[in-house]
Amino acid sequence: MTRIIMHGCNGAMGQTITRIVKEDAEAEIVAGIDIHNTMENEYPVFQSLSQCDIEADVIIDFAAAVAVDSLLDNAIVKRLPIVLCTTGLTEEQLKKVKQCSNLIPILKSANMSLGINMLLKLVKEAVSVLAPADFDVEIVEKHHNQKKDAPSGTALALADSINEVMDGQYEYMFDRSTRNEKRGKKELGISAVRGGTIVGEHEVIFAGTDEVIEFKHTAYSKAVFAKGAVAAAKFLKGRRPGFYDMSDVVRI
Amino acid sequence: MTRIIMHGCNGAMGQTITRIVKEDAEAEIVAGIDIHNTMENEYPVFQSLSQCDIEADVIIDFAAAVAVDSLLDNAIVKRLPIVLCTTGLTEEQLKKVKQCSNLIPILKSANMSLGINMLLKLVKEAVSVLAPADFDVEIVEKHHNQKKDAPSGTALALADSINEVMDGQYEYMFDRSTRNEKRGKKELGISAVRGGTIVGEHEVIFAGTDEVIEFKHTAYSKAVFAKGAVAAAKFLKGRRPGFYDMSDVVRI
Amino acid sequence: MTRIIMHGCNGAMGQTITRIVKEDAEAEIVAGIDIHNTMENEYPVFQSLSQCDIEADVIIDFAAAVAVDSLLDNAIVKRLPIVLCTTGLTEEQLKKVKQCSNLIPILKSANMSLGINMLLKLVKEAVSVLAPADFDVEIVEKHHNQKKDAPSGTALALADSINEVMDGQYEYMFDRSTRNEKRGKKELGISAVRGGTIVGEHEVIFAGTDEVIEFKHTAYSKAVFAKGAVAAAKFLKGRRPGFYDMSDVVRI
Amino acid sequence: MTRIIMHGCNGAMGQTITRIVKEDAEAEIVAGIDIHNTMENEYPVFQSLSQCDIEADVIIDFAAAVAVDSLLDNAIVKRLPIVLCTTGLTEEQLKKVKQCSNLIPILKSANMSLGINMLLKLVKEAVSVLAPADFDVEIVEKHHNQKKDAPSGTALALADSINEVMDGQYEYMFDRSTRNEKRGKKELGISAVRGGTIVGEHEVIFAGTDEVIEFKHTAYSKAVFAKGAVAAAKFLKGRRPGFYDMSDVVRI
Repeated sequence: MTRIIMHGCNGAMGQTITRIVKEDAEAEIVAGIDIHNTMENEYPVFQSLSQCDIEADVIIDFAAAVAVDSLLDNAIVKRLPIVLCTTGLTEEQLKKVKQCSNLIPILKSANMSLGINMLLKLVKEAVSVLAPADFDVEIVEKHHNQKKDAPSGTALALADSINEVMDGQYEYMFDRSTRNEKRGKKELGISAVRGGTIVGEHEVIFAGTDEVIEFKHTAYSKAVFAKGAVAAAKFLKGRRPGFYDMSDVVRI
Repeated sequence: MTRIIMHGCNGAMGQTITRIVKEDAEAEIVAGIDIHNTMENEYPVFQSLSQCDIEADVIIDFAAAVAVDSLLDNAIVKRLPIVLCTTGLTEEQLKKVKQCSNLIPILKSANMSLGINMLLKLVKEAVSVLAPADFDVEIVEKHHNQKKDAPSGTALALADSINEVMDGQYEYMFDRSTRNEKRGKKELGISAVRGGTIVGEHEVIFAGTDEVIEFKHTAYSKAVFAKGAVAAAKFLKGRRPGFYDMSDVVRI
Repeated sequence: MTRIIMHGCNGAMGQTITRIVKEDAEAEIVAGIDIHNTMENEYPVFQSLSQCDIEADVIIDFAAAVAVDSLLDNAIVKRLPIVLCTTGLTEEQLKKVKQCSNLIPILKSANMSLGINMLLKLVKEAVSVLAPADFDVEIVEKHHNQKKDAPSGTALALADSINEVMDGQYEYMFDRSTRNEKRGKKELGISAVRGGTIVGEHEVIFAGTDEVIEFKHTAYSKAVFAKGAVAAAKFLKGRRPGFYDMSDVVRI
Repeated sequence: MTRIIMHGCNGAMGQTITRIVKEDAEAEIVAGIDIHNTMENEYPVFQSLSQCDIEADVIIDFAAAVAVDSLLDNAIVKRLPIVLCTTGLTEEQLKKVKQCSNLIPILKSANMSLGINMLLKLVKEAVSVLAPADFDVEIVEKHHNQKKDAPSGTALALADSINEVMDGQYEYMFDRSTRNEKRGKKELGISAVRGGTIVGEHEVIFAGTDEVIEFKHTAYSKAVFAKGAVAAAKFLKGRRPGFYDMSDVVRI
């Protein structure tokens, strides 16, 4: 049994994880942390991790970037591993996360879903075969109309994953409307579609001579990310200090 | 039987049309016009339309923009209708085309394929129902890596067709990477993917609350445009002077 | 304000509609009917419609087929219109529904979503243009692994809609693995994919010479059907007796 | 330079390979074999391999199944490797192919395209990660309306590749319309769509809880298979006797 402290338990993702864990025989949430006291939960909720005296194996964090510093400080005191899902951290904070991972296990990924993390691996294999055969690589991602950043962090992670194999030769191209030129051989186009309530769709396209291969991931609900976070929590319990990501959990 | 003069007969599209017409019992190419003398054809080929003394019903033009002025002049002399498929005309030339259409029938369209021209009509109906229900509209087009312009003329024609229904309220958005904002209600995003030898793919996406509707057209070869041009030639034979487009041929 | 009685209020769809209506300024649920007393609702719940003495404008039904007979009987007594979303009715029951629609307004559709009902209309227009141009029509639908029937009622409704234009010439083809023959000109293939929790995806494919046009609808949650039901309820309020379907609501 | 004898040089695939090799600086066709004398080729053409006295490194075969026996006999005499692309061999012939591969190198694959052969590898990795996480696997393939067999050999090869990882537990399901049951956990559905001139599209779908991953391959022309055959020819030159397939060429 993995005992979880849910940091940011009253947010949308915190509640989704609460629901997922309820149906999971091998995990339970033993306490929640949230500054907002808006939800009724079956576990005790504290305003800050420092106030929480409940024994646990791991923290899942889906709160706000501003809360990350105190989260890290308190987790070190308690020697608790963190599945760190909050995004939008500053450079400063990212540096602190790395430092703290010398003392406690911390897992952080651009995307928590099993499927995306498998794709991150498979597109690497694909590009190593297809780039020498002159295939061009492009990425199209689609998200809901409330998302502010474009392209998505996951689209960039897919691009980086591909570019790593190519020794960073690819240059990302976000807009072709302002020039009137053929596609460069080392371009990697990334397009961002926004509309409705689309949860998240990522497509990596390898286009060659008369042949196209597409890898597509569609998330139908945020439960996908919640499930990944719980899988990560189980994985992190009892690990040595260090910096982990979902590829360690997926291990393909 | 529709007797065609193929203007630009030795180019790639000219040769494709030659092949298509050969298998068409109701049309024949009676003469070709081309400044290049590179191909063997079963019909006589002249360097310019003025030299051609063969009787015909209609001209199909898939040549170069620079040749359009003399084409128009000579077609008026001969009172021959033109299916004008050459793109990249100047403002000046477009104006001349309109003027000439008072004297001879001229058909000009952003895209010659039957399927695209049907879509141009159907997306109008779709937006009139879906826009009031708060659906967002986005377009993604994919073409080969040698195409210089982006987005494609067809993508813009689809956008214009949709925007016409909305009284021009939509603002086209080509790049979301440079800002950090939610999608505006009146944005219409257009993304251009480039790679390999993709002939042409256009996707119009209507994204609502938990519901997405997509209209997608895929061209597998240039024969699609050649067939459309031949259908247009048959349509134009014997018409009154005027400016036509493929929607007149499709008539749905 | 449209006052709704929710028949089958404690089922999954009943609860989804309850949630949707809560955010709708122009509708409210004034009573629920359910034989199961499993949920807490903000409105009074009765075991049967006959016991309900609350004034209302319309009934939405998402219950079980066995409950339809008594629903019809009681709705006639109360002169209440019904949005009838329960599926799997017997021939007998379908006949009774038609008869009752002489006395009260009844709306029944294969699929309650706005998008699908628009598609039902647009594919008709498409086939009338594309069938004469020798395009073949195929349908692929995808649903979750708990769905028993295949193909889906919506896929069949799409096929019927297309076939209506073709004077019923098309023959539906569900399996090509048992024969070794070219596709017949009048075949309309329907494929059913099952997996995971896919809510519902329908794709109508028109395949011609070197050209393919696809119409695709994706539902991301059951909220889509709930929203359609509520739109239908608003539409049905105050109507004359008669048999309606969603095409009357969509009116494109 | 790889010197190729093209067996079946006057068929559609033979001519496509002729065109591809013409633009390839590292390969040339030194002779053709065909019983039909219908085409003009830039290389000498013989009625049978036994009559051909031109020195070569490898044979590419895209002829008819009936010609395979004499091809094998003559290739053994000449000690020439064969890229065997002809399909529809009898059990007897397949056995003979295996035996001959003790004497000369023979390469045979369900599909000659680079992309499909890469997919055959990647879907294996995918299923090994996703099947334990309860993802369902389905395959949809699309081909032109002249194709007789369904599902395609490539779709079956993809299914077999996946099933190999699962120790053959999956049962292929070609038709769900005749029963009224939930999807079985060990089903692998294969759907065949037929229409127009679609060259070949294969989609492998992994559907999990609120998450779908798709791998899709689209061939835009037969050039794809021609290119694969030429790559195989280069690979086979100078190899030891043995039975090879495209996975040896792709080597990912």
